[in-house]
Amino acid sequence: MKRSQQTFLIVALLLWSSLAGAAKYKIDHLEPPFWWADMRNPHLQLLVHGEDISDLSPELEYPGVTLREVTRVQNPNYLFLDLHLSSDVEPGSFEIQFKKKDKAVLTYNYELKEREPGSAMREGFNQSDALYLITPDRFANGNPGNDEVEHLAEGLNRSFPGGRHGGDIKGILDHLDYIDDMGFTSIWLNPVLENDMEEYSYHGYSTTDFYNVDARFGSNEEYLELAEAASQKSIGMIMDMIVNHCGSEHWWMDDMPMDNWINFDAEFSPTSHKRTTVQDEYASKEDLKHFNDGWFVATMPDLNQRNPLMANYLIQNSVWWVEYAGLTGIRMDTYPYSDKHFLTQWTKRIMEEYPNFNIVGEEWSVNPVVVSYWQRGKDNKDDYVSYLPSLMDFPLQSAMSSALREDETWGTGFIKLYEMLANDVLYADPYNLVVFGDNHDMSRIYTQLNEDPGLFKMAMAYVFTIRGIPQVLYGTEILMSNKGTTDHGIIRSDFPGGWEGDETNAFTGEGMAEKSLDAQNFVKTLLNWRKNQPVIHHGDLMHYAPQDGVYVYFRYNDDDMVMVVLNKNEEAVNIDTLRFHEMLTGKSSARNVLSGDSFDIGDQIEIPARSPLVLEIME
Amino acid sequence: MKRSQQTFLIVALLLWSSLAGAAKYKIDHLEPPFWWADMRNPHLQLLVHGEDISDLSPELEYPGVTLREVTRVQNPNYLFLDLHLSSDVEPGSFEIQFKKKDKAVLTYNYELKEREPGSAMREGFNQSDALYLITPDRFANGNPGNDEVEHLAEGLNRSFPGGRHGGDIKGILDHLDYIDDMGFTSIWLNPVLENDMEEYSYHGYSTTDFYNVDARFGSNEEYLELAEAASQKSIGMIMDMIVNHCGSEHWWMDDMPMDNWINFDAEFSPTSHKRTTVQDEYASKEDLKHFNDGWFVATMPDLNQRNPLMANYLIQNSVWWVEYAGLTGIRMDTYPYSDKHFLTQWTKRIMEEYPNFNIVGEEWSVNPVVVSYWQRGKDNKDDYVSYLPSLMDFPLQSAMSSALREDETWGTGFIKLYEMLANDVLYADPYNLVVFGDNHDMSRIYTQLNEDPGLFKMAMAYVFTIRGIPQVLYGTEILMSNKGTTDHGIIRSDFPGGWEGDETNAFTGEGMAEKSLDAQNFVKTLLNWRKNQPVIHHGDLMHYAPQDGVYVYFRYNDDDMVMVVLNKNEEAVNIDTLRFHEMLTGKSSARNVLSGDSFDIGDQIEIPARSPLVLEIME
Repeated sequence: MKRSQQTFLIVALLLWSSLAGAAKYKIDHLEPPFWWADMRNPHLQLLVHGEDISDLSPELEYPGVTLREVTRVQNPNYLFLDLHLSSDVEPGSFEIQFKKKDKAVLTYNYELKEREPGSAMREGFNQSDALYLITPDRFANGNPGNDEVEHLAEGLNRSFPGGRHGGDIKGILDHLDYIDDMGFTSIWLNPVLENDMEEYSYHGYSTTDFYNVDARFGSNEEYLELAEAASQKSIGMIMDMIVNHCGSEHWWMDDMPMDNWINFDAEFSPTSHKRTTVQDEYASKEDLKHFNDGWFVATMPDLNQRNPLMANYLIQNSVWWVEYAGLTGIRMDTYPYSDKHFLTQWTKRIMEEYPNFNIVGEEWSVNPVVVSYWQRGKDNKDDYVSYLPSLMDFPLQSAMSSALREDETWGTGFIKLYEMLANDVLYADPYNLVVFGDNHDMSRIYTQLNEDPGLFKMAMAYVFTIRGIPQVLYGTEILMSNKGTTDHGIIRSDFPGGWEGDETNAFTGEGMAEKSLDAQNFVKTLLNWRKNQPVIHHGDLMHYAPQDGVYVYFRYNDDDMVMVVLNKNEEAVNIDTLRFHEMLTGKSSARNVLSGDSFDIGDQIEIPARSPLVLEIME
Repeated sequence: MKRSQQTFLIVALLLWSSLAGAAKYKIDHLEPPFWWADMRNPHLQLLVHGEDISDLSPELEYPGVTLREVTRVQNPNYLFLDLHLSSDVEPGSFEIQFKKKDKAVLTYNYELKEREPGSAMREGFNQSDALYLITPDRFANGNPGNDEVEHLAEGLNRSFPGGRHGGDIKGILDHLDYIDDMGFTSIWLNPVLENDMEEYSYHGYSTTDFYNVDARFGSNEEYLELAEAASQKSIGMIMDMIVNHCGSEHWWMDDMPMDNWINFDAEFSPTSHKRTTVQDEYASKEDLKHFNDGWFVATMPDLNQRNPLMANYLIQNSVWWVEYAGLTGIRMDTYPYSDKHFLTQWTKRIMEEYPNFNIVGEEWSVNPVVVSYWQRGKDNKDDYVSYLPSLMDFPLQSAMSSALREDETWGTGFIKLYEMLANDVLYADPYNLVVFGDNHDMSRIYTQLNEDPGLFKMAMAYVFTIRGIPQVLYGTEILMSNKGTTDHGIIRSDFPGGWEGDETNAFTGEGMAEKSLDAQNFVKTLLNWRKNQPVIHHGDLMHYAPQDGVYVYFRYNDDDMVMVVLNKNEEAVNIDTLRFHEMLTGKSSARNVLSGDSFDIGDQIEIPARSPLVLEIME
């Protein structure tokens, strides 16, 4: 070969490889896909995923945006870009150019949106609210057209309790009036992000894409539409988030950035569920690791939040959804299963960004020592600091259920509820706990209470008038029950009237049993009354030790007073008012909130058999 | 009548009345009967009781002693004298003269004794101790001569479980060697003060004289003799005190100083036992009153410690006994039933007088939130301050008993014990709690554990090696049981060998069942070993979540390590040592404390069926 020929060949080969290289690069994921100007926190870290993307060098040019650092990791298919946004950066778009040898082979048009007015100072859900928990797959099928989606594995199977039933965001949107009329002021949906799992995808706790709503529920745009429509009715949106794990079909599981992205080397090792290890002074690190790093189930790989790239990813994802959808709150799943120092960061970052926001954590322990550990303001023995404002009050839920179900003896019945509430000294802010009779993970409260309508009403009256923020699972208001089973798919049965052709319709009352309508009306009356009762939202609480199957407590402030009496007896009883002199001295009349009747307070008040009495007490 | 005759008559009448008056006065009670010079607290308040004693004016003269105030109360039969003792007052005696019209009609020779050297800085019982709880009427009858005493109502009735059986202080004195040999280093006697009640006086909790030992148990001098003999063997004395109530036959019940001496106007009104009212932010004052001021039982009038004269009386009485008998500790009965602000005073005063002392309170709740409230150093939500160093660990007792008795499931068995211990974060000083399997008020631990010798040994091994100060009820070490009954009189059965003619003798082993001797030997071996184990007294604790019916924990410090394994399985099991790498890395051999055998630590350790293993771990 001649020298000239040889040179030509080399040049040609180089050219070919360069062109071929440019063609080969593409961005499979860039997250967060956009962001906002004028956020309090100036840092933004982008995850960029694409084959051999780390070959490229990103650059950008936009006033107020600096690319401070580019991080390459073990897997060449990832780049992490640390951007700094100055406080005066303007909303707008800019190109991120990914260059090879100073030549842009890829560009991504990144947008900094303008924030909604008042976004930072939005008010989170609080004691004036009542939360309606909806399992989106099971409430109403507003769009049968998205029941099956080609690119997602699991199809419709309404006859299987654990299958997808077709409920969606449109269904909720269509029935916002019902929710509003019932007196609910916030909706908490079980997770709606993509769960492209082979089975049991309906519950939503196996995220396969942290930035997109599952197409079988709708789209990001529909989610936003729901949030906006709800907001028009002063109904807030609480998003169910999971940072502990993802679904095993998450896209990154096939191509992980690095070894320590998923706990236990990405091999399934079950969590011990030994949550006390988090704060137990005597716990071994070994046990703590098996609790924290163990996987919830085999299909839920446990995310390693000690990896700062993972931590950033999750934090930003949460902030992104709050900002994108105008959320009024977050419900955080499997709270203690995540690394606790990460949880400090996660809560701190969100609460700094939205100081009046609210987040409720799921710490499913019936021990208030364990639950109270996580609440903002708690003075923990190990000096652990949390910024989590609220927790689900599982201890009170459990005590209430037992208290109502059990016979009254020295140590059973109402005394359990009375004594559990005394443990409120452990909480930094007991008034900000979320109280409930049931949720999507446990038997319906009506079932827990052996389908006793009187006990059901006492449970609801308690949840609606005790300190805290009440929460009701969809359908609980119409006495949905799972008698004889604890199958989650049956607990989460379809709400009647949500599907075309349903024989009964709880939205209209059509075909519904009398007792269901009575229960529904009871909930509706109390919740609508509650909306305008600052004394219930913020008033002090005084309760009296249960006596003879009757439990009495008061909510009171300078202006108002409410007396609640729960009577478990099978007959009406008269209670002496003298015992309550601390509250009732100077009060002369009462109005029964449920019946609307008023009466003078004498030496005794008659409490109807096996029911709650809610009285407005007046001078 | 002539004028001179008239004058004579008047003079004679005056003389007569004066003489008659002088004759009429006498002191029925003057308490404390003596005191000590050089106490830290300079105040001393004397209660003087005698018919119309308030007619008289007390005076005294002694260098360093000032009579600061004389208080007359509603009942003229009382005087309260406030003395101030200067810091340089010398031991000695002085007359208190009770004068009428400047004439002493009564005198009392008051002694200020010299304190024992080191009295103030005495060391209270602590984690290096093991406590032996003795019901004096039921341990040994050392002096049959005092079984019945003429001036005390109840006589001997050994055939009745609730009657007096004749045990006494002399019986304990006679068997100090046994107690010492067993490895106990402190004795706690159920109350020994006079209980001149018609029935059930044997238990001692109905005090009828706060300054005198019941003559059927012996005398103050014998009590002192026991304390001194015990001290010779380095055995401490813990006195069981009751400030919540007295016995209904207490001398002052017939002639009370004033109306508010006894709660509920000295009429029986039962306590509600609702102990949470003490700290519950939501409790009504009405409920608190019914807990605190209600009487324990009808024969135990509830003392009003909010009356400062009563408060002083009780505080001084406690100090008097500590000083008189050289006590190393106090066990305070029915702790939360007394007024909590009084309890602050009471504990403060004693702990100021004896800074290294120890006091353990009985708060019989299985909720550590409730128990921990009372411990010195606890940062309570209501800012309540306590100076009580120790509490009986009822929550751990209950959890241990359940843990051993129950089958192993998700929420039962060892997990209860593991999770209860995690609540130690609530205590200011969990290491100073008193741990026990049983006491005089509950079924014997052997009975609680269905008379299973393996479970019994695990219970004892746990109590002796976990954090805290172990306590054993007399006879528990020989498997005394109350199967089929909860009659306190049977729980507190006579210790075999304590009575002349007993067929079996646990002091000598004569006639005892093999299993009882085996249990006794087990306790003896462990306790004597424990005496010299600083690692058990003060070492750190690490425990591992129970697995497959096996619970493992370690006690360790810089020098030593002890591994305790409790195996509930009916067969021997091998446990992998790798799991315990935090503790066992670098350790190569172990010595079985119970058998004395040593072995090399390999990959596994074999744990015998249904028994505890206590291992000294070595490099």
